Amino acid sequence: MADSTPEAGSLAGGAEGHRRLAELIPVALRAFADGTAERGGPAPAGGPATVAASLAAADAPLLPREGVGATRALEGLSRLLAAGSVDPAETWCAAHLHCPPLAVAVAADVVASAVNPSMDSWDQAPAASEIEREFAGGIAALCYPGAAAPDAVVTTGGTESNMLGLLLAREREPGVVPVCGRNAHHSVARAAWLLGLPAPVVVDCAGDRLLPGALDTALAGLPGPAVVVATAGTTNTGEIDPLPAVAEVCRARGARLHVDAAYGGMALCSPALRHLLDGLDRADSIALDMHKFGWQPISAGLFVAREAADLSALTVRAEYLNADDDTEAGLPDLLGRSIRTSRRPDAFRMAVTLRALGTDGMGALVAHCRDTAAAVAAAIGEHPALRLWGAPTLSTVLFRPVAADHLDAGAGDELVAGVRRALLEAGTAVIGRATLPPRAGGPERLWLKLTLLHPSATPADYAPLLDVVAAAVPVREAGVRAGQSTVGS
Amino acid sequence: MADSTPEAGSLAGGAEGHRRLAELIPVALRAFADGTAERGGPAPAGGPATVAASLAAADAPLLPREGVGATRALEGLSRLLAAGSVDPAETWCAAHLHCPPLAVAVAADVVASAVNPSMDSWDQAPAASEIEREFAGGIAALCYPGAAAPDAVVTTGGTESNMLGLLLAREREPGVVPVCGRNAHHSVARAAWLLGLPAPVVVDCAGDRLLPGALDTALAGLPGPAVVVATAGTTNTGEIDPLPAVAEVCRARGARLHVDAAYGGMALCSPALRHLLDGLDRADSIALDMHKFGWQPISAGLFVAREAADLSALTVRAEYLNADDDTEAGLPDLLGRSIRTSRRPDAFRMAVTLRALGTDGMGALVAHCRDTAAAVAAAIGEHPALRLWGAPTLSTVLFRPVAADHLDAGAGDELVAGVRRALLEAGTAVIGRATLPPRAGGPERLWLKLTLLHPSATPADYAPLLDVVAAAVPVREAGVRAGQSTVGS
Repeated sequence: MADSTPEAGSLAGGAEGHRRLAELIPVALRAFADGTAERGGPAPAGGPATVAASLAAADAPLLPREGVGATRALEGLSRLLAAGSVDPAETWCAAHLHCPPLAVAVAADVVASAVNPSMDSWDQAPAASEIEREFAGGIAALCYPGAAAPDAVVTTGGTESNMLGLLLAREREPGVVPVCGRNAHHSVARAAWLLGLPAPVVVDCAGDRLLPGALDTALAGLPGPAVVVATAGTTNTGEIDPLPAVAEVCRARGARLHVDAAYGGMALCSPALRHLLDGLDRADSIALDMHKFGWQPISAGLFVAREAADLSALTVRAEYLNADDDTEAGLPDLLGRSIRTSRRPDAFRMAVTLRALGTDGMGALVAHCRDTAAAVAAAIGEHPALRLWGAPTLSTVLFRPVAADHLDAGAGDELVAGVRRALLEAGTAVIGRATLPPRAGGPERLWLKLTLLHPSATPADYAPLLDVVAAAVPVREAGVRAGQSTVGS
Repeated sequence: MADSTPEAGSLAGGAEGHRRLAELIPVALRAFADGTAERGGPAPAGGPATVAASLAAADAPLLPREGVGATRALEGLSRLLAAGSVDPAETWCAAHLHCPPLAVAVAADVVASAVNPSMDSWDQAPAASEIEREFAGGIAALCYPGAAAPDAVVTTGGTESNMLGLLLAREREPGVVPVCGRNAHHSVARAAWLLGLPAPVVVDCAGDRLLPGALDTALAGLPGPAVVVATAGTTNTGEIDPLPAVAEVCRARGARLHVDAAYGGMALCSPALRHLLDGLDRADSIALDMHKFGWQPISAGLFVAREAADLSALTVRAEYLNADDDTEAGLPDLLGRSIRTSRRPDAFRMAVTLRALGTDGMGALVAHCRDTAAAVAAAIGEHPALRLWGAPTLSTVLFRPVAADHLDAGAGDELVAGVRRALLEAGTAVIGRATLPPRAGGPERLWLKLTLLHPSATPADYAPLLDVVAAAVPVREAGVRAGQSTVGS
């Protein structure tokens, strides 16, 4: 079939690139709109088999020998992607730290992709380097307002940032042992494995927060140097470790401190919430993610160091990218700002977004999510069929059907897991899960989780969802809950 | 200033997202066009100080407290980025393995960014998972046509893929020692450092190709297991190691083989060029980059394993992403397909591109670049003021001014480096550099490098550039070359 839009081999850049993009992007947007309408909710109905069948039914081989042209490829696959996606712009898509991106960030990324700066040398990214440098400096100052020479680098996300936290510690002190709370993200243990460090020493928590006394005991028992990873916004609950007390223990024990603030860090933009992060600036390094609060498309990670000099561990020389004589002649050396080599300018869309919103505007979106979570938690607290884990600190709300508490532990957890899967499979709602003790203490149980990152959702959006969850509990267990005898199954 | 376009906090997704993108993307494209016109060539003139001054003069703080709105932020920064970028869509921007992206790939990425699938769990990426799975399977079959169960995963680029090659070797055989040619990419040594492995044993090359005899000697001298990294398309010259001979040495010595085909791998799509990669399918794993040949915006890396089972080294479990009971209930487990956690669906735009072009169309673009390089090399060979390093295998052409050969080694190299920097600083051309012996043997010298990745450039585009390079040689050295006495300075 002939293709009236630009040839598949047409370029996005150069003097004519904007015209080709102005022809092709509307094709993609129409298909995106059609696919979204076809889906008609937060998730495709039918689960994995149905989604796989849609792709198969489309009969659209991804690596044909002969191509179908840019228009047909964009139309078909964009529609399939949209129809078969969970969409975090739908309020009931609330399982994960998976945000709905802002349109301004997506628009900015088009220019970044078309010009395609690669951040590993100045002669691939002149202006992008300057923008990244200024943006990183601004983020570093936000995290470390009192520090003399903080610095930040761009990463693929919290996982890479946490790895850098351990890597810098390893390079300063060979033999360093990672120590983290039981609430830490799995990437801490994975980074230790990747870097050839010992598995982290895991410290107990209460209410999903690291216990400073337990940390002190753990550090006292170590023969050598340690790097502590604390969390400001856990994945399970959004709780924030007691940072001032943790920092004090680290200081007293001579341990390095990295804080995984991938979730909570952007609360620094909110004058109303900033206090939650008191003590953050006592960390040696910090992980931030603007693809959580920050509303960027993935990826938009940042790694912030209190001392810019610590980043010298990443220094590497490659003649084709940063020859000594080029560096001496004034070409900035960018290679040592990442463990990657080719690297897209994700700082550009982060910078455009923050310039559009301002830090106050960004902080207001964070505060909105937190307020919504508080109201949803209050509604759960008053719901006769639901039990609340505890009041949220950030925007994560955990709860479970009361019916599950009337079963034995295993059956109750199965009920909770089944409700989550049933809503997902029906395409009704995308809800998360977490196994942990209630905040007030007690045995571990499986909870349902709402991670509220929609920047304009309201508590009223979630009231019907709570009823849907309650109604999803099978009749048999609901009967047990009400103390009735079981009638039928 | 009031902003008539969508509010800065408007979302890209949901039922209305496409409308907001249809308003904001044209704003970005106009600014991109204006900035490109302002630049008017392959690079901004004036070097780092001028680019930094442009950003400062724009007086556009990137983290203001109060935002300026989506339109103003997009307009100002998109124009600055375009005006201050080197643009690989300009034929004289030819320093690096830094491709001009195809418009179809950039358009596809808009949909990926708007829907924002995160590839770490099925409930964040239902259709994107299926598309990635099918695409990865197609790539794996392209690389390993005869293998029973090959598999591929998506990475940020060759650097991460090479790291995975060493990581999988480390997990199979603790104590493994990396071995690579002197021609290997710097990321091999960096990966060894990151992973806590010994520094690579470096094997001699001739003509920028690994010497199988030297490899055999190196492997014979190792007490324990080894992983060999060969290169199919070196960064300096585009040469391809003798893969069948290398594979045979590895087999005989029981060493694992990883091939860094980040540059050359997509030549598999070209029936005319595929023979260059004979022996590639004897490797245990392969690095590919579709942000080189492949014409994707960064990043578009792939790591291909002959045995899917080898990828089990990446297995990780995190209850919130891949709980055992969810996996048992049929939710695909995607977390173990990357060392990242949150991960954007870069496979989507790669798949749309290959569906648009077909593998034959993609192969034709690769062959076009190679043909252009051969013709440019021939022109250099006939140019009285330039000396050719050797005939290109892929699309890299190395040469130096004859005048540099008439100086002592240090002064000659300074001349070459100075020509490159002068053209870059003037915004005239972006040319690469490499230090190595001539292909035919001899002492190491600094060469100029053209890495030709423009899929529609012709040899005629580069003829004037060769004259510009020759003319850029300072008069004094040109005089020396011509055997004249030096007059003035």
